Amino acid sequence: MIVRSQEFSIVILFRLLVALIIVATSTLVSLSNPLFAEDGVSKRPNIVWIISEDNSKHYLKHFDESGTPTPAIEAMARHGVTFDRAFSCSPVCSVARTTLITSCYAPRIGTQYHRALKQAEMPANVSMFPKYLKDAGYYTTNNAKEDYNAVKTDGVWNESSRRADWKNRPSNDTPFFHVQTIHTSHESQLHFSEADMQTPNKTSSDEVDLQPYFPDTPLFRYTRARYHDLIQKVDDQVGKLIEDLETSGELENTFVFYFGDHGGVLPRSKGYLFESGLHVPLVVRVGDNVKHLVDRPFGSRTNGFVEFVDFGPTTLTLAGVDVPTEVDGQPFLGDKIDASEVDRRDEAFGHADRFDEKYDLVRSLRVGNWKYIRNFDPIYPDSLQNNYRYNMLAYQQWRQLYQDGELTPDQSAFFESKLPEALYDLETDPHETNNLATEPRYRSQLIEMRDRLTQRLMDMPDLSFIPEAYLIDEAISQPVAFGQTHRDEIGELIRIANLALRPWNEAKPELKAALDSEDPLVRYWAVAAATSFGDQAESIKHEMEERLVDMEPIVVARAVEFFTTTEFDDLKQGAEPLSFLYRSISRATSEAEALPILGTAVFVNDHCDDRFPLDMKQVKLIIPVVPNSELERRMKYLGSL
Amino acid sequence: MIVRSQEFSIVILFRLLVALIIVATSTLVSLSNPLFAEDGVSKRPNIVWIISEDNSKHYLKHFDESGTPTPAIEAMARHGVTFDRAFSCSPVCSVARTTLITSCYAPRIGTQYHRALKQAEMPANVSMFPKYLKDAGYYTTNNAKEDYNAVKTDGVWNESSRRADWKNRPSNDTPFFHVQTIHTSHESQLHFSEADMQTPNKTSSDEVDLQPYFPDTPLFRYTRARYHDLIQKVDDQVGKLIEDLETSGELENTFVFYFGDHGGVLPRSKGYLFESGLHVPLVVRVGDNVKHLVDRPFGSRTNGFVEFVDFGPTTLTLAGVDVPTEVDGQPFLGDKIDASEVDRRDEAFGHADRFDEKYDLVRSLRVGNWKYIRNFDPIYPDSLQNNYRYNMLAYQQWRQLYQDGELTPDQSAFFESKLPEALYDLETDPHETNNLATEPRYRSQLIEMRDRLTQRLMDMPDLSFIPEAYLIDEAISQPVAFGQTHRDEIGELIRIANLALRPWNEAKPELKAALDSEDPLVRYWAVAAATSFGDQAESIKHEMEERLVDMEPIVVARAVEFFTTTEFDDLKQGAEPLSFLYRSISRATSEAEALPILGTAVFVNDHCDDRFPLDMKQVKLIIPVVPNSELERRMKYLGSL
Repeated sequence: MIVRSQEFSIVILFRLLVALIIVATSTLVSLSNPLFAEDGVSKRPNIVWIISEDNSKHYLKHFDESGTPTPAIEAMARHGVTFDRAFSCSPVCSVARTTLITSCYAPRIGTQYHRALKQAEMPANVSMFPKYLKDAGYYTTNNAKEDYNAVKTDGVWNESSRRADWKNRPSNDTPFFHVQTIHTSHESQLHFSEADMQTPNKTSSDEVDLQPYFPDTPLFRYTRARYHDLIQKVDDQVGKLIEDLETSGELENTFVFYFGDHGGVLPRSKGYLFESGLHVPLVVRVGDNVKHLVDRPFGSRTNGFVEFVDFGPTTLTLAGVDVPTEVDGQPFLGDKIDASEVDRRDEAFGHADRFDEKYDLVRSLRVGNWKYIRNFDPIYPDSLQNNYRYNMLAYQQWRQLYQDGELTPDQSAFFESKLPEALYDLETDPHETNNLATEPRYRSQLIEMRDRLTQRLMDMPDLSFIPEAYLIDEAISQPVAFGQTHRDEIGELIRIANLALRPWNEAKPELKAALDSEDPLVRYWAVAAATSFGDQAESIKHEMEERLVDMEPIVVARAVEFFTTTEFDDLKQGAEPLSFLYRSISRATSEAEALPILGTAVFVNDHCDDRFPLDMKQVKLIIPVVPNSELERRMKYLGSL
Repeated sequence: MIVRSQEFSIVILFRLLVALIIVATSTLVSLSNPLFAEDGVSKRPNIVWIISEDNSKHYLKHFDESGTPTPAIEAMARHGVTFDRAFSCSPVCSVARTTLITSCYAPRIGTQYHRALKQAEMPANVSMFPKYLKDAGYYTTNNAKEDYNAVKTDGVWNESSRRADWKNRPSNDTPFFHVQTIHTSHESQLHFSEADMQTPNKTSSDEVDLQPYFPDTPLFRYTRARYHDLIQKVDDQVGKLIEDLETSGELENTFVFYFGDHGGVLPRSKGYLFESGLHVPLVVRVGDNVKHLVDRPFGSRTNGFVEFVDFGPTTLTLAGVDVPTEVDGQPFLGDKIDASEVDRRDEAFGHADRFDEKYDLVRSLRVGNWKYIRNFDPIYPDSLQNNYRYNMLAYQQWRQLYQDGELTPDQSAFFESKLPEALYDLETDPHETNNLATEPRYRSQLIEMRDRLTQRLMDMPDLSFIPEAYLIDEAISQPVAFGQTHRDEIGELIRIANLALRPWNEAKPELKAALDSEDPLVRYWAVAAATSFGDQAESIKHEMEERLVDMEPIVVARAVEFFTTTEFDDLKQGAEPLSFLYRSISRATSEAEALPILGTAVFVNDHCDDRFPLDMKQVKLIIPVVPNSELERRMKYLGSL
């Protein structure tokens, strides 16, 4: 019995100890976590994202002098924080939105192509972040655009449709996360006809400033003025949403983010890694009742860099929900976030891959006011055909004026081959028209930026060095794991691609060896790198000619680009470079394989000289062309359908 | 009026002159053409072809001591002529029958593949020859097999079906040409089961002679005995057809040809260019009333060589109809044909290409008793899988005995790689088991035969040097014209292929250059030729490795054969030879392109060593596999379907 009694006492004591620990922990949590009010009832903040489509920060006077007034957004800013350095990671919708919803860099997780020919599986242990909110009791709604390039996981939204509304939450006590997309500023709204131009804009064409790379024509002025009108309408809509929150009494319990989903939407913005494509407006209105979660005064601005990968983590942090360790972003607001640390952030990564049917692999890194762009397909001009883009009259006119020889060099650059690298000083050159990459005095800056970007691509690793067709075939069910397993191989591909940046005599022996590799992707990148040397690469002409008969159609297409952009079109046995292109097109076994090759065909047709007249009749596919597919778009443009 | 009267007289005189010329010409024709009897009424001979399927001359005692008696055929011979040297040009049905109906060598007119994946258009100015008979008033009937690899032209037959019967001709005065095919001896009749073997044959197994290359087993003896029974049945059917003609009173107005459509049908006959595959029985019974057209006595035999291309011209000549100049054959019977000239003919050409799903390009030339065979795919054993062929138990048993190591060298040869050339002295080696090609004392004979065959292939030109897929794509609508236009290129391909026959050190520099050609077919033949050198070709291993990544899947497949039949499987970057084979299979854009590559897969699987285990799961086609297609047969055999 004595023993029993002792046992009993020990059990009792242990239980008391456990209870005490539980109570103490709970108390500590409620004391330290401001999401719980003094009475212990949850007062977690609501979070609302208002996303306007296709607009960079440049068109809002709140950010740029030449922009238009946006009183509602400005009012948000007065009651919140303005982020002067907010960046979409991608200048196109589906990729940008996938980045927002996953908090991951798209080229790391295989969602970088607009739009996905096959959606990637989400990384292991990562859900689209609203799921974490929903699991934590939030009511999550999306109205309405999704456009994800990843397979949507279960339990992300309570409602995602045009009916999605935070007001439908089960109880007024339920905190909510709501996303509202405003379509008003979307590219399609600038697809007006010449007849439409009879209708005057509210904004006068005379009063708009035109970017220096545009021809100063009534059409361009009309287009920009019209876009100002659209931004004003966006602002009205933002104002109404704020009003709605206010009416319901939730505004002061809410963080309202207003931002653009990526840049746009005059030419040379959406689809490009210039600031006009990536640099978005971001204003976060902070409700009075939740302001203790943010250590920035109302009306403040910051130059700290924030990227789309950070938006999810920030939202989770504001809601007091853990951020999964496997995502790329980091929060920039929240009670544990040090504003001064955010202010010091100064780096933003950008990526461009395929936009609809058009491929052009570009990566960018902005560090402070330095912008570095790496063109992995430098022979392609920025103007390379994308059917949707050229719906805009301004695009059409710009091209026509180029063809007519009526443009200044800065205005013409868009239609000409690029250098493999660009370096811009945004302080003095906000429009990125003065490439400093070739200037010796910026050499060390260039190398520093190049190395920094390269390291990021290798660390990621960037899956775009595995061409899309291969990625779909081999990796789309687990892109991240694939990337981890193939980190070294991808690093080697990046190294080969970057031979383009070395002096020819240094690059040559490695290129020569790489052209002869058994690995098709090594050959692919070796051909691409060699092509960027142009006529300089004469001494490996023979090795390049070998690649015209390569087993991989995309390698052939790249080799064709070499021969159609150099003087070396005198092939063995009098063969014609284009005959290999036709053959490679017929050899393509999937849409993802055919598309870049058709891109070569378009490039040759539109941008190479008269030695290479494309014979549309010989452009024949063995694979079916699905209606409304990217393939159909390319075939239609080529007149082969 | 005077003028008018003079004009009138001239017109009258001119008309009279024309009438006179017409009458005179007609008279001359009826006088000089023995097809018109003295009373001027047409008595043109009837011609009947009786064709038994799949039998060489060796099984008829009339031709070979070890054959079976065929009293009906022997009776025909007593009332006609026996051709001891009659040859099908091809050892398979559709090709042989196309040769018969076109009078053209199949590889010249694009009809050499059994069966055509796409039928060739007939050569310009050539019709299937019964049309000429029909146009000349003959009643033409075919009962019933056609199986042509060319597009059938209009007006060939009055009736071609199982109902086709010369007795349906419009009038008894109408001469007829009738073709009757006897299916009794067809290969399928030897597709018996083990249970069927309980039924004894009429012919005793003990009394048959087995060819020396066969294992002497009860099954082989049973098979041969059963075949003797079948030949006897054929003979009965021939007898009935003769009787039928006799009953109707037409026999003596008729030339009756009896022949086999090609050799067969024990193993190593149908499908092979040995005598067992090509050498057919031919007896022509000559009706009493038409014997003036032939200058050979009843019961005579000739060793003059006749080939299938000659059968149409002979038939036309007997009917008094002109032979088109564009055909390859020449008549061997007829009133203008000199028997002694025919007796001196001593050359027969043979060709083997694809049989169903199995490719193996072989050409042969028999001159007198010398037989020369050129194997353009020497690494393929004769036993290479053809699903239909292996339905026969004897085939299965023969293979099993080989695998069990129970065969003599002569019996094993069928299952082993061939030499590029074979030379047989048929006088001493009627079964073609003793290849004299490597014996120095026959060197000059070998070279002479080689040169003679090569010259024939070049003169033709032989379209099989353009692989089937290319032929279908580029030439099938006018193969002969294509051949004429590309004579030099084809000659060059033959030259490259024949580098295989030169000493390695002589061949090497040309092979090396050819491997690097822009012309895929030059590369194709260069790889094939190099492969026949085996390990000797070590010094061009690198150039061969390049071809593993060739744009053309069939070139890749040939290169894979090189690496799976030599020691050189240590590829760059540790690549696996078979990985290129899989890739080339997936790259094939048509059945004709996929088939030979799958042939390589079968070859590797069945005949290469353990270093190369084929992974069926990686054998994937992008093109659809049509039910009952050759492609389906191959895929099924590979277990990939």
